[in-house]
Amino acid sequence: MTKPFNIGMIGYGFMGRAHTNAYKRVGDFFPELEYRPVLKAACARSAESVQAFADQWGYESIETDWRKLLERDDIDAVDICVPNNLHKEISLAAIDAGKIILCEKPLAMDTAEGEEMCAAVEKSGLANMVWYNYRRVPAVSLAKKLIDEGKLGRIFHYRANFLQDWTISEDLPQGGAGLWRLDAAAAGSGVTGDLLAHCIDTAIWLNGGITDVSAMTETFIKERVHSDTGEKQSVSIDDACSFLCHFDNGSLGLFESTRYARGHKALYTLEINGEHASIAWDLHDLHRLSYFDHRDEGALRGWRSIHVSDGDHPYMDHWWVPGLQIGYEHSFVHQVADFLAGYEKGEAVSPTFRDALETQKVCDAVLDSARERKWTDVG
Amino acid sequence: MTKPFNIGMIGYGFMGRAHTNAYKRVGDFFPELEYRPVLKAACARSAESVQAFADQWGYESIETDWRKLLERDDIDAVDICVPNNLHKEISLAAIDAGKIILCEKPLAMDTAEGEEMCAAVEKSGLANMVWYNYRRVPAVSLAKKLIDEGKLGRIFHYRANFLQDWTISEDLPQGGAGLWRLDAAAAGSGVTGDLLAHCIDTAIWLNGGITDVSAMTETFIKERVHSDTGEKQSVSIDDACSFLCHFDNGSLGLFESTRYARGHKALYTLEINGEHASIAWDLHDLHRLSYFDHRDEGALRGWRSIHVSDGDHPYMDHWWVPGLQIGYEHSFVHQVADFLAGYEKGEAVSPTFRDALETQKVCDAVLDSARERKWTDVG
Amino acid sequence: MTKPFNIGMIGYGFMGRAHTNAYKRVGDFFPELEYRPVLKAACARSAESVQAFADQWGYESIETDWRKLLERDDIDAVDICVPNNLHKEISLAAIDAGKIILCEKPLAMDTAEGEEMCAAVEKSGLANMVWYNYRRVPAVSLAKKLIDEGKLGRIFHYRANFLQDWTISEDLPQGGAGLWRLDAAAAGSGVTGDLLAHCIDTAIWLNGGITDVSAMTETFIKERVHSDTGEKQSVSIDDACSFLCHFDNGSLGLFESTRYARGHKALYTLEINGEHASIAWDLHDLHRLSYFDHRDEGALRGWRSIHVSDGDHPYMDHWWVPGLQIGYEHSFVHQVADFLAGYEKGEAVSPTFRDALETQKVCDAVLDSARERKWTDVG
Amino acid sequence: MTKPFNIGMIGYGFMGRAHTNAYKRVGDFFPELEYRPVLKAACARSAESVQAFADQWGYESIETDWRKLLERDDIDAVDICVPNNLHKEISLAAIDAGKIILCEKPLAMDTAEGEEMCAAVEKSGLANMVWYNYRRVPAVSLAKKLIDEGKLGRIFHYRANFLQDWTISEDLPQGGAGLWRLDAAAAGSGVTGDLLAHCIDTAIWLNGGITDVSAMTETFIKERVHSDTGEKQSVSIDDACSFLCHFDNGSLGLFESTRYARGHKALYTLEINGEHASIAWDLHDLHRLSYFDHRDEGALRGWRSIHVSDGDHPYMDHWWVPGLQIGYEHSFVHQVADFLAGYEKGEAVSPTFRDALETQKVCDAVLDSARERKWTDVG
Repeated sequence: MTKPFNIGMIGYGFMGRAHTNAYKRVGDFFPELEYRPVLKAACARSAESVQAFADQWGYESIETDWRKLLERDDIDAVDICVPNNLHKEISLAAIDAGKIILCEKPLAMDTAEGEEMCAAVEKSGLANMVWYNYRRVPAVSLAKKLIDEGKLGRIFHYRANFLQDWTISEDLPQGGAGLWRLDAAAAGSGVTGDLLAHCIDTAIWLNGGITDVSAMTETFIKERVHSDTGEKQSVSIDDACSFLCHFDNGSLGLFESTRYARGHKALYTLEINGEHASIAWDLHDLHRLSYFDHRDEGALRGWRSIHVSDGDHPYMDHWWVPGLQIGYEHSFVHQVADFLAGYEKGEAVSPTFRDALETQKVCDAVLDSARERKWTDVG
Repeated sequence: MTKPFNIGMIGYGFMGRAHTNAYKRVGDFFPELEYRPVLKAACARSAESVQAFADQWGYESIETDWRKLLERDDIDAVDICVPNNLHKEISLAAIDAGKIILCEKPLAMDTAEGEEMCAAVEKSGLANMVWYNYRRVPAVSLAKKLIDEGKLGRIFHYRANFLQDWTISEDLPQGGAGLWRLDAAAAGSGVTGDLLAHCIDTAIWLNGGITDVSAMTETFIKERVHSDTGEKQSVSIDDACSFLCHFDNGSLGLFESTRYARGHKALYTLEINGEHASIAWDLHDLHRLSYFDHRDEGALRGWRSIHVSDGDHPYMDHWWVPGLQIGYEHSFVHQVADFLAGYEKGEAVSPTFRDALETQKVCDAVLDSARERKWTDVG
Repeated sequence: MTKPFNIGMIGYGFMGRAHTNAYKRVGDFFPELEYRPVLKAACARSAESVQAFADQWGYESIETDWRKLLERDDIDAVDICVPNNLHKEISLAAIDAGKIILCEKPLAMDTAEGEEMCAAVEKSGLANMVWYNYRRVPAVSLAKKLIDEGKLGRIFHYRANFLQDWTISEDLPQGGAGLWRLDAAAAGSGVTGDLLAHCIDTAIWLNGGITDVSAMTETFIKERVHSDTGEKQSVSIDDACSFLCHFDNGSLGLFESTRYARGHKALYTLEINGEHASIAWDLHDLHRLSYFDHRDEGALRGWRSIHVSDGDHPYMDHWWVPGLQIGYEHSFVHQVADFLAGYEKGEAVSPTFRDALETQKVCDAVLDSARERKWTDVG
Repeated sequence: MTKPFNIGMIGYGFMGRAHTNAYKRVGDFFPELEYRPVLKAACARSAESVQAFADQWGYESIETDWRKLLERDDIDAVDICVPNNLHKEISLAAIDAGKIILCEKPLAMDTAEGEEMCAAVEKSGLANMVWYNYRRVPAVSLAKKLIDEGKLGRIFHYRANFLQDWTISEDLPQGGAGLWRLDAAAAGSGVTGDLLAHCIDTAIWLNGGITDVSAMTETFIKERVHSDTGEKQSVSIDDACSFLCHFDNGSLGLFESTRYARGHKALYTLEINGEHASIAWDLHDLHRLSYFDHRDEGALRGWRSIHVSDGDHPYMDHWWVPGLQIGYEHSFVHQVADFLAGYEKGEAVSPTFRDALETQKVCDAVLDSARERKWTDVG
């Protein structure tokens, strides 16, 4: 028999949709799970908007005040899908209310907030997770497996980019629904927290801790109309951010993110170079992993393009048949599946608040390094 | 207010799952639809198997006799996901019972069966559709749009392949669950009906009718153990099939399909060469369309790799944000969405039984041509 | 000490240049060769044109009558780079004159001519070679090596295309300098002899003899102005040609060639599917070989893109350093190098006239099959 | 009538061969040139080695002392293809001797040396050039043309990598013939001067000056046997180097180079993101340019893969026919052709010593920044 896992969703934007879809699908494709998400309530300030969202996706009820949601007994877990500046406040209240927390990334506005959240959630003993979903793209999970098996040997290099091009127009406003990511007051930072945080989370997972960074940020368009005021206001987010770093294992890192790379919509790429083998992946063809193995017969060495769609690839025995690709949204389904499997066994599932805090520390060091124009130690 | 569209699913294999997933998701992503699929009943001979299927996917009830299913008043439409040799019998009975039919491809075992089915369904006036799902891969739909706009000009060439490698081992048996596609008695033909039928459906849709063919088939492994008997039996399906053809519009066609192309799991590729522009697509990277336009500035001409994930690409405004790809299963969601939108308006939605019959005629001509080693006119 | 190998070049077009370049470079990169080409004389009807050619490339003298060239004692070998309709006459005269012959492909206008040439050259005992240069692209040579080592196992499929788009305009005339390939009187056939002949030569080399074919040809533009007459005349070459075939080893073949594939300039592609492994190559990235090996560890199987630029790749120890690619022209250098190495040892070097005759027979069968619309056995 | 341009080559290694090949071929493919290189003399300390080199490539004479070479009246230009620590001394002597200088990159061991060389050569008025050959890869030249035409608009990002993997083995010694690049005493630096210098030269050419840098270097293998002494010695070159930078035009730069990127032999990649369009290129497929133009029709936007082999592409009207690629060595032929065309007109041809000095300054700033772990202004 299955048991309900009652979800209270706070927010209804892009991430609200992605998570909801995952809750609805996980039981169909991971039927072995004991717990099954139930869409108990959706919450947002606008009753009209959240009702429309609840109607479309099948939430049983709505709330317009997240504090009310936290008071409800029929909610096991809250999913925090609101702008970053609300993560801490809602999380702390949710912990007080004894709710499991599934929090959208980045964890917080900065390390200080993140540490407070971590301390509280760990003291409470409540299950918690942060939505760094790219770990659960099967090709990325396969990369992790290969690294853990030692296939790469000593690691020399790690590089990652996250390139977009959607903010090049000067006419794009900042702030408000859908555009809060351009408003530092709501987002904390620009591409660093939005995009590089993903790259950093994966990097730490695959390659271990980062010790120090030298970073550079830029705001190409200095003023934009703010949606809330209708006025041109100074833009205080970073439009682009690059950094050099060292990892604990002695390898070198190179990261870049921007929303001004014409031609790239969501090109998250990563590459790892080891003594024996190298791995590369990108989000625009997320169902493929590139792999080079120097131990292959000399004249036949070449980068392999692995179509990650076979039953022996991570997660893929849950889907279709070899050769048939899955997409972006499936990474969330996998994350829910793993979370629920862990929850069933009483085990924490990574990335927890604690794991996400490590990424937060790197982000803070990056922003600090850029501001000060100097190498900065992490955390 | 939405209205229920009550589904009776016959079969529970790979296609049963793919269609069911589509029924369950279509309302979330196409909320404008009036009709919403309801999983009323699943039907298969084995009560145990179909109950497990129903439990996993949420069908309200089961049946073990499809005739019983057809007698139920609470079923609006039946989805026929059983081996090809049962399509006709079930379809004709379903028509008698006044059920809408959504039939897995190919339509029938041969043209004669298909004509009987077409005549009956058209006489009945019942809505009907065949699951040639690849038309609704957004990149393929975009190709159709470009052709319809005249972007390619006069067409010279059409070529398509469907390459797999899963039957190379001699140890693979034929017949039985999951392997009926290797048994001519159940499947009618081998790669011709299974794989080439997809290529032909898309080709007719994109490039118009086929007039005559010259084909070649081969059965590389002559005997396999039959799952039903445990005995080695002659294999009578085609392991591979290739054909040359002419289209009504004067262009030349070249098609190939095999299950013996090592390294290709489900590589359906197509390319169309026109006077002004060319298009290419393949199923292993189904979210991309390759496009070459000779009208581009001379020194800057090149094949464009279009990442079909923008809001102005077919169907993509219903999904995520630019750069985030969808996968195989979404083609079925689109097909259900289009079908229900048509049903709402009382309009037939292609491919109907009639459309699928055209593909059947080409398949028959192909098999006849291969047998007779001569050019054969289509239907 | 090196010895001179005195060349008399007949013709000065595209192939005249490509061969001459090979003669001039081979000694620099293959210094171990005993014989070194010496550009003794270039010959063509127009004294002015051939003098300009000789001046540019460094031929010591010119002739305007190829019969005169054949009479000269200081010529060891003639290189026949004139339209196909002159190959036989010049070859037979050259054989009479005791000259070694390096003949541009295709060997002849048809099989009958080819057989006469073969008989004569073999009776004479003179060294002879036909310029099917693509065998000596290092990636293609590597493919041959892998096949000979048995890496692919039993072969199931061979497919090859040669796609161009340079004759789509109706305004292009036929006949005359540079355009004789559009004039059946000079060329014998269209894409079949020009492009498919390359595909067939490689196929026979890699996969053995072809037994029977079913072909289709088309002439999309029926009339073009003839450069010689200034009049619109019927076009009698094949603009496109496709064919199905069987190989002696039981594998199936599929070939296509056209000059109407918009977007492809010289896209010669080939793919071979074997029991254990597959190989693919194309001329637009000729320095790469694609290789899939099913014996690779399951979850890590993928098509390898081999950058054929290492010292252990065929011919590549003669060039630069790993990672630095060579181009089209180098295939001719390799062919000269192999020819001279064989000549030194008194050994025939493939493709000889005899080898090229096999390709001619397939071409003839293809054209016959297309004309008669029936399967045709190869010569 | 053509005129001789008498070359004295100093060195006979990889670059000596590449330059010599260019001298020998340029007249064949650029017949319009007035000056034609003549291989007058090759010079190196070992008489035996340089004689073998001269015999293979056709130098008329040899010298074993470069001072003797400089004294010869029959030498117009010297080509300096020796380790970096000799560039200054030989250059200054050559200038004294009134010789034109074609110097292998990098210009010098450091900026101070480079400034001395610049001052001397400019005072002398002698023609001079440095072999940053990648500018003359046709695809890179096409990129330059597009940028100069303003196709990209305001530039936001420039990134370049040069990745190799040939020094991963600890058993590789340093120093001596073929391995002097691993010896700081001979090379000055490791990947910075060897590989990044190429990236920087192209970057300045395409995107203008660099103002400041933050760099990181690493030496992964700390000790290697020195070929000269047979002893294990400390390795003082940089095995890897990455840096962030700003360009004068306000764009951000990101550069990386290493010899520890398993799977990459000579992967020089560059990408430029502009307001309207982006460009990408890499050395492993050097005959292609990737181009994205946001002004293309919305649903049809995509990265174009331009096969740079058409007559309207830079330099390509000098080679074969569309679709047939050239290779690495041709970049040197183009550089000689451009140099000789400039020489004929009395015009300096870029990159001159002065141009190369700019790259030297950036390299010095990079090495200084890495040493000091701080942002460093460029010279």
